[in-house]
This record gives sequence, structure tokens and C-alpha cells, in this order.
Amino acid sequence: MSSNATISETGRVEAFSDGVFAIAITLLVLEVKIPTLGAVPLGLQLARQWPQYVSFVVAFMFIGIMWINHHRMFTHIKRSDTVLMLLNLLLLLGVTALPFPTAVLAAHLGQVDQRTAILLFNGTCGFIAIAFNVLWRYGVSKRGHLLGAGVDLESAQKISRQYAFGPLLYIVCFALAYINVLASLALNAGLACFFALPPQVAVRHHREG
Amino acid sequence: MSSNATISETGRVEAFSDGVFAIAITLLVLEVKIPTLGAVPLGLQLARQWPQYVSFVVAFMFIGIMWINHHRMFTHIKRSDTVLMLLNLLLLLGVTALPFPTAVLAAHLGQVDQRTAILLFNGTCGFIAIAFNVLWRYGVSKRGHLLGAGVDLESAQKISRQYAFGPLLYIVCFALAYINVLASLALNAGLACFFALPPQVAVRHHREG
Amino acid sequence: MSSNATISETGRVEAFSDGVFAIAITLLVLEVKIPTLGAVPLGLQLARQWPQYVSFVVAFMFIGIMWINHHRMFTHIKRSDTVLMLLNLLLLLGVTALPFPTAVLAAHLGQVDQRTAILLFNGTCGFIAIAFNVLWRYGVSKRGHLLGAGVDLESAQKISRQYAFGPLLYIVCFALAYINVLASLALNAGLACFFALPPQVAVRHHREG
Amino acid sequence: MSSNATISETGRVEAFSDGVFAIAITLLVLEVKIPTLGAVPLGLQLARQWPQYVSFVVAFMFIGIMWINHHRMFTHIKRSDTVLMLLNLLLLLGVTALPFPTAVLAAHLGQVDQRTAILLFNGTCGFIAIAFNVLWRYGVSKRGHLLGAGVDLESAQKISRQYAFGPLLYIVCFALAYINVLASLALNAGLACFFALPPQVAVRHHREG
Repeated sequence: MSSNATISETGRVEAFSDGVFAIAITLLVLEVKIPTLGAVPLGLQLARQWPQYVSFVVAFMFIGIMWINHHRMFTHIKRSDTVLMLLNLLLLLGVTALPFPTAVLAAHLGQVDQRTAILLFNGTCGFIAIAFNVLWRYGVSKRGHLLGAGVDLESAQKISRQYAFGPLLYIVCFALAYINVLASLALNAGLACFFALPPQVAVRHHREG
Repeated sequence: MSSNATISETGRVEAFSDGVFAIAITLLVLEVKIPTLGAVPLGLQLARQWPQYVSFVVAFMFIGIMWINHHRMFTHIKRSDTVLMLLNLLLLLGVTALPFPTAVLAAHLGQVDQRTAILLFNGTCGFIAIAFNVLWRYGVSKRGHLLGAGVDLESAQKISRQYAFGPLLYIVCFALAYINVLASLALNAGLACFFALPPQVAVRHHREG
Repeated sequence: MSSNATISETGRVEAFSDGVFAIAITLLVLEVKIPTLGAVPLGLQLARQWPQYVSFVVAFMFIGIMWINHHRMFTHIKRSDTVLMLLNLLLLLGVTALPFPTAVLAAHLGQVDQRTAILLFNGTCGFIAIAFNVLWRYGVSKRGHLLGAGVDLESAQKISRQYAFGPLLYIVCFALAYINVLASLALNAGLACFFALPPQVAVRHHREG
Repeated sequence: MSSNATISETGRVEAFSDGVFAIAITLLVLEVKIPTLGAVPLGLQLARQWPQYVSFVVAFMFIGIMWINHHRMFTHIKRSDTVLMLLNLLLLLGVTALPFPTAVLAAHLGQVDQRTAILLFNGTCGFIAIAFNVLWRYGVSKRGHLLGAGVDLESAQKISRQYAFGPLLYIVCFALAYINVLASLALNAGLACFFALPPQVAVRHHREG
């Protein structure tokens, strides 16, 4: 069958994605600059580099928690086709790009152009959040084909609801940068924590809140 | 048996290849330069770097779609021998090399030597397309040994036909660079999209077109 | 069930962690500087770089042996939940950060600010040792949920006892840097060897010693 | 049982090693320098960089073929203990270090200090060949514990005989550098080809030769 020939297990999609997430998260540290020998004591040089550590930790949290979500998504999606692999590549495009806005942020946080840097960083996070939604909705729409046989549909709907907030919240985060750069960065970190919560807890918390 | 002793499952060949593809695709972003603090506003510096983003996205698409094809190929090839592993290494040689022509392209696109840069990039893509054909034809020629028991031969032949276009199309792409550099780059991106299609669709489209 | 929906196999957690450990350990070599062409003979330039080789080997041993311990831990932990994944990310945060203190150490060992550099390196190792304890204790505390069915509890307790020494020993290591920097580095390497031993041997040796 | 508690499957040892081999082989390209914009035409700059391409290809072949051998070894070794994991780390230490001598060779080949560079490169290859022998001999010596149940002992002995040549041949290669640097590099590439052959063929060829 023509359509079956293009459907396969998700094992290698997950392995390839794990590799990309693992490398992107590990490359972040290369953007932390090594202080050189010089007149300024090393301890002081290290302390002055705080924007680099903040950028590293926020980007690490973001990628790490996106990985947890990718893992969670693929406990439901059990088969892949060409479109799913292409949408997954779109998501990974955002993930592999992230070390770039992180490095721009690390270099410009606390400097005159920090607003541009945080807009670029938030914009990339927003792109990833949109790609997550598109990938997930495609997987869910092909329920009979791509979701696992024993899939818990209620639990899948809770994921849909949690993800739907993502792009909206990153637009807020983007807009907030025009008012206060550090508040925008803090909200970005907070959003990562929100997406770290399992969908049950996150959605319940939102309804009660 | 001497010949059996050198035949094994493809699990680790796929895992190693997944690793190489994942790292090569993630290293591409290291070639996007971080704008420095200076007199030129950050936003303007970022905008002027467009050739780096174009190169990054085209190379990302190329490697990503080559990975999809590698994955597709190994749903048919189920066992590996020493020759298959060496031909796979030849393919991976091209994939690991790609960040270099990508960086050369990013540095020279829109500059005086852009033709040389695109020729190097297209040449590397062509090398990878040839390696793909050699690997696939070797796997198919050892039908009884390396292909899976329940392999769909018609589907395998469709892959053979789609791959056979690859080197020819990249020669066109190479030649086009002498007429128009951006058209050559656009065709290269278009070829990636062609190879992203499952062979059924791609071959049918070609016949009807 | 709400709680079951968030519990899954550890396969991808291990695959992602393997990736991060493998990349972090391989990136260490990028901090070894390539001697340039010049008046000083290459052999002499290579010899003068001894602090970079020492830092590389100590950090390689540390990450390699942390990987062995992670592997050992996950022969007992068979299921993961969100908290376990977050605690594992905390551990990986330390592991991915390590190339930075390693590079700082490589640049400053034998120089005026070497004490600051070794304190940063030992501090990161201590952070990782603490994260290991927190992760392991959480896994053990969820005995019925996360540990494997046929888990050897005595063997798990031996691991608990061995890990508990970790943070204490790294504090000693940290303090020793105020007296002698090279002794502190040697103790750090010695601690890696201690954690390389299987818990049975390590704990027995400690009791007899 | 105390001794059983430290014996486990080799799945994660192979996955971690695959990761390290894949990253080391992909990092090699970072040592190929990107020609800058300038008075010298790009094509000429690219042509002058031939020592970097030679170094890249030789190191790629070496790591790729070491991976094939690692894969071959672990079709026989089916269980791992702490000593095997530490000996495997020793082997990986050599593999992760290789991008450094490769970069030194790329920078100095064809220059005044090329002999020192090739000695460093050959020395690292020799270290890896010795580590391979130690790892393999340990695995074989623990026949009942670590080798698979249905292991083909004759085939294992052929591997032992082929590996035993390794360190000797790299000493020849090392010594040859004092006579002719390019001949030494060519022999190094030839040795990689020798180890790419399955042991049956390699040993038979040696006997007949």
C-alpha cells in the first residue's frame, strides 16, 4: 500500500531528535567566554560575566523543558509519516537555532541594545512554541494513523489545551520586552516552568487561578 | 560461516548515523556570527547578516531531508556488512563536511567570490547525492543478504528511480551557478523539497509533469 | 489515571543523557589550543601547554566516571516521572557547564589566578555531586513507582552510602585549594577514581580503611 | 550476588560510545578554516588549504574505521563490568583527543615543523590501537562472563591476531615519520584500510602476503 509504505515507527525520529536536543543544549556553554590572563583579577572578570550565565541557564531550562515536552508528545504519537518528520524538522530548526539568540543575548544583556537581543530570543522561543502546536495538532488529527492504539484521548486533549497557550504567552513575553527587559526574561523562564508541569496540573492550575 | 560473521543488524549503524546527522545539523548554527557591541545598532547588524541565515536554513533543510532519506533507506535495508558500513561512512564524510561549504557560502554570499562559494556548496551536495546512490544500489544488489525479508520490491525500485535523478539534478544546479548564483541556491533548496517527498509521490509527479 | 499518565519508561531519558554526557566529554578537547606557526618550535609550544592537557584529562575522567555512575543508577531506576526528569536536567546542567570551568582552569593553571580557577572547577564538581544525591534519593524514595521490580535493595543502599560522601569530599577538595592548588586537583582526580569503584568495593574499602 | 550486581548489558556502553565517536568525527570539520574576504581570490585560498583537507580525510577515515572495529568487537562482547567500562573510557579518551592532533597536523603539514605534528598524530593513533588491544583482551579473558553465549571463538581469535599487529604497525608508522612525513601519513591511512577489512580477510591476506 502506498500510504503504509511511508508510515514507520518513531524510534529513529526520537533518536535523531534526542541527539539534536542534546547537542543544542550542550553547545550553549560554548557561548560563555573564557576570561583571559590580564590586569583584572579572574574572580572579578568571572563576576562581570553574569549576563552570560543568566542567558545560559534560561536557554538551558528552555531547551531541557522542550525536550521533556517532546518526550511527552511521543508517548502518544507512535507512528510517523513524511509530514510528521518535516514538521519535526521545523521544530528542530528552532531548537538548533537557539544557541545563536542565546549568544546575542549573552553579549548584549545589560548593554544599550538589550531590547533587540531579548526580542530575538523571545521570537525564537515563540517560533518553537508554534512549531510544537503544529506538530502536535497534525499528530492528533491523524488519530487512527499516528497515535498509539491505547492512547488516552482525554490526556491528549489536556496537552492540546496546554500547548495552545504557548504562542499567546510568548507574544505577551515579546510585548513585555518593550516595557522591561528583565521582566520579559523572567516571564520567559517562568513559561518554561509552566510547560515543565504535566498537562493535568498545568491546565487545572490555570482554571483554578 | 565466514560471510555470516561479517553480517550484523543495522541498529548501531543507524544510531551512529543518527548521531552524525544530528551533530552536523546542529553545528551549522556555530557559523552564524554573533554581532559585537559597537557603533552600528544591533538590529541593523542582525539584518545585514541575511546571507548567514539563508545559508543556515538551506543547509539545515538539506541535511534534515538527507536524514529523512537515510531513515527511509534503512526501513528496507535490515542487515549490514563491511562494504555497506564503508559506503555509509563515505556518505557521512559528505554530511560532516557540509558545515564547511555552508560557512564559506555564509561568508561570501553577496560578495565578489560568491560563485566559487556556491560551486563548493553544490559540489558537496552532489557528492552526497552520489554516495546515496552507491550505498542504496549496493544494498539493493545484495537483495537476499541485506534487504529485509518482507521488503516491498516495487517500493524499493521507486526509491532507485528517485535517487537516480539526484546526481543529474545537482549537475544542473552546479551549472546554473555560472548563470545566476541565487537561482542555483534556490534550485538546491527546491531539490531538497523534491527528495523530501516519498518516492511514490516524487516519481509519479515527475512522470505526469 | 492522572499519576500514571506522567510515568514512563526511562529509555529516552537515558538516550538524552547519554547524548549530553557524550557531547560534553567530546567538547573538552576544543579548549586545547592549537599552537600557531611562529618562532617558537612546535615541540616546545606543545610542551608548554601542559596545564591544558592536565585539565582535559581530569575533566574527561570526571565526566566519564559520572557517566558510569549515571548508568549504574539507571540499572535500578526503571521508570521516570516529571520530577525525576527535572532533577536529571539539574544534573545535566552541571555536566554541560563543566567545559567552561575546565577551560578557565586550562587557561589559568600555573598562573597568578589559579586558585580562583580551581575553586570554580571544584565548585562545579561539587554541584554535580549534590545533584546526583538529590536525583538518586528521589528515585529511591519513590521505591514502588520508579525502582525496578527486582531491585536489589541492599545494593541500592550501598549506592546511597557511597554517594552521600560525594558532597562532603568535594567540600574538602574545595577547602584544600586554599592550601595547595595542585593537591586539590589531585584529590579531585582521586575522588573520580573513588566513584569509579562499584559501591560494594568503595564502601567496604572505606570501612576497612 | 556482589559480582553480578556490577555486570550489565552493553546497550548504554554502545550508545555512549556511538555518541562519542559520532561527535569526534563531526568536530573534525571545525578545524578546517573559513577563508576570509580579501585580496586573494577564494578559489586560490581554498586550494592552498590542501593540508587541512588531507588531515580531515585521514582523521575521518581513522575514527570511522575505529568505530567499525568497536561495533565488530561488541558483536562478541555482550556484557560489561566496571573494568570494561573504564577500559572503554581509555579508548574514548584517545578518540575524543584526536581532533587536537588533527588540527595541529592541519596547521603544520607542509610547514617547517610538520615532523613534530605527524609524530603527535601517529602517537595518538598508536595510543588508540593499544587501548583497543587492552579492551579486547580483557573482554576475551572474561570469556564466561562478558562474551556472548553463542560466540564464535575462532572468529574472536582472528580479531585478536589482527589487533595485535596494530601497535606494532603504528610504531613503524611513527618511525617512518623521521624518514618521510608524507609516507608516514600515507601508511597511517593504509593502516586504517587494513583495519577496515574483516579479520578473516585481513589475517588471511597477511598470511598469504
